[in-house]
Amino acid sequence: ADGAAMAGALSRNGQLTKPPGSLGRLEGVAIWLAGWQGSEKPRVLAPQVAIFAGNHGVVAQGVSAFPAEVTVQMVANFQHGGAAVNQLARVAGAAMTVTALELDRPTADFTAGDAMTADETAAALQAGWDAVLDSADLLVPGEMGIGNTTSAAAIAHALYGGTPEDWVGRGTGVDDQGLARKASAVARGVGRLGTRDPLGVLAGVGGREIAAMAGAILRARHLRIPVLLDGFIACSAAAVLQAANPQALDHCMAAHVSAEAAHGRLLTALRKEPLLNLGLRLGEGSGAALAINIVRAAAECHSGMATFAEAGVAGG
Amino acid sequence: ADGAAMAGALSRNGQLTKPPGSLGRLEGVAIWLAGWQGSEKPRVLAPQVAIFAGNHGVVAQGVSAFPAEVTVQMVANFQHGGAAVNQLARVAGAAMTVTALELDRPTADFTAGDAMTADETAAALQAGWDAVLDSADLLVPGEMGIGNTTSAAAIAHALYGGTPEDWVGRGTGVDDQGLARKASAVARGVGRLGTRDPLGVLAGVGGREIAAMAGAILRARHLRIPVLLDGFIACSAAAVLQAANPQALDHCMAAHVSAEAAHGRLLTALRKEPLLNLGLRLGEGSGAALAINIVRAAAECHSGMATFAEAGVAGG
Repeated sequence: ADGAAMAGALSRNGQLTKPPGSLGRLEGVAIWLAGWQGSEKPRVLAPQVAIFAGNHGVVAQGVSAFPAEVTVQMVANFQHGGAAVNQLARVAGAAMTVTALELDRPTADFTAGDAMTADETAAALQAGWDAVLDSADLLVPGEMGIGNTTSAAAIAHALYGGTPEDWVGRGTGVDDQGLARKASAVARGVGRLGTRDPLGVLAGVGGREIAAMAGAILRARHLRIPVLLDGFIACSAAAVLQAANPQALDHCMAAHVSAEAAHGRLLTALRKEPLLNLGLRLGEGSGAALAINIVRAAAECHSGMATFAEAGVAGG
Repeated sequence: ADGAAMAGALSRNGQLTKPPGSLGRLEGVAIWLAGWQGSEKPRVLAPQVAIFAGNHGVVAQGVSAFPAEVTVQMVANFQHGGAAVNQLARVAGAAMTVTALELDRPTADFTAGDAMTADETAAALQAGWDAVLDSADLLVPGEMGIGNTTSAAAIAHALYGGTPEDWVGRGTGVDDQGLARKASAVARGVGRLGTRDPLGVLAGVGGREIAAMAGAILRARHLRIPVLLDGFIACSAAAVLQAANPQALDHCMAAHVSAEAAHGRLLTALRKEPLLNLGLRLGEGSGAALAINIVRAAAECHSGMATFAEAGVAGG
């Protein structure tokens, strides 16, 4: 981050026509944006919601309440503007891109072998890298992929330990049996891995859309674009990066905490405090898209307000 | 609220292309909006942020970190677009109105006698009633008034009991001595009241901007305009109405919980769950203005998403 821009923003924040600290978290959000945008007066004028879709061999283990063909159906729904994230991106004034990653070629069932080869993992990372618009000033990586909460749980279990049950949840709405099948799949997949570096974990139990989100977050860092992290699956992609480099997520803020129980635990592991807590558990980048206007509001207050001197208001 | 519109919205909510419940609180927000807007597909196209400003005789007791002239200075700042709420209203696409209520004639110091006469209280209620735009489809009542957290604390203490210390807070940033002076002023003001009906409490220890917000909330109910409640002071106005009629706030949702400690306690008394918790404590309607885009997003998801049948997506 740009230390001079952050220092300038911090100084400006102290001169705005409000009691010190009275905009709460919006003040820190504006200063964080200032650092990554390299401007004392940051704005959110061109946000991007970048959705990635992948299919998962592990659905053969009965881990989802929805059939695998829903992934391709929902991609069509994204393309026709009918999904929740379409509405949320529109309200946020965000460009939305949809990248479908070989939906007719699911990953391998990770309970039996690696989900992706090294080449497949690299290709998915590259697809994420390529999807980020140079012009974006705030990025929301989002996802769709029937079965992918199981993959995210396996990544978290592999990176952070605990029990499989700590990391599995109801996803789109599995019953108790489905939940037990998820825990079993996670246990078998992670048990198979042995010692791996974070990218090895991603290949072993991840998925193409998860790798693509990791690639997009990396690309955003390269372009100094601040990132809003969505829910459990987007955060599992982020976790791979942070496990590889503890500073890798300094340009990322947690947009919300999902109703998927393990998301709160994952945010704690990532040391990220969410902006919103509204019980969403949809994925698609929906929670982070919802937070774009919060971040924009923080930037607009910071950059648009008058100072005490400009407004002729007496200080406290 | 319109029961048929709510039932229609509830049914529609179950058919949208998302797992049941996966939009969390946004789903309930959309159904609440549907009921008050009387439409199965509610929208937020013309929100209004209505700011009211008043001055307070109780500032003579040394209860504020800022001098009383800041009220009129901040009204000028609102009019010139330099305050936080100006930026927040713009991000929300909201019309903003500013009503200054006899700023050169503060209320009486309520530690010594009633803050307002019955006629003054009625005039302020009327000013609030008159400020609501017929065309608004969502209303945020907000306020500015140096000293008004003390007035709000006195209202809450009079309506709900407890100790003065339960209801006073740092406001714009008073020190420990200032806080003790606030508690003392609240104790003396409320001690003086005896048994009063809620409007008597409002006249006794309230303020013009607080009465005006109550009038605006009443007018919104009359026009079936849903309302977002801001912080401690706006909620003290709402509390007067709810004390008079337990259903008076059914058209109101709590936008946020403020860092002013007593606001959480007041929301509990009002039985309202806030949408946001971002540590704001500015007033001006700022927290509720920030929540407008959350409510809009809820409406847009509900009204703009495709159903499973429309999108050709398989149900769970």
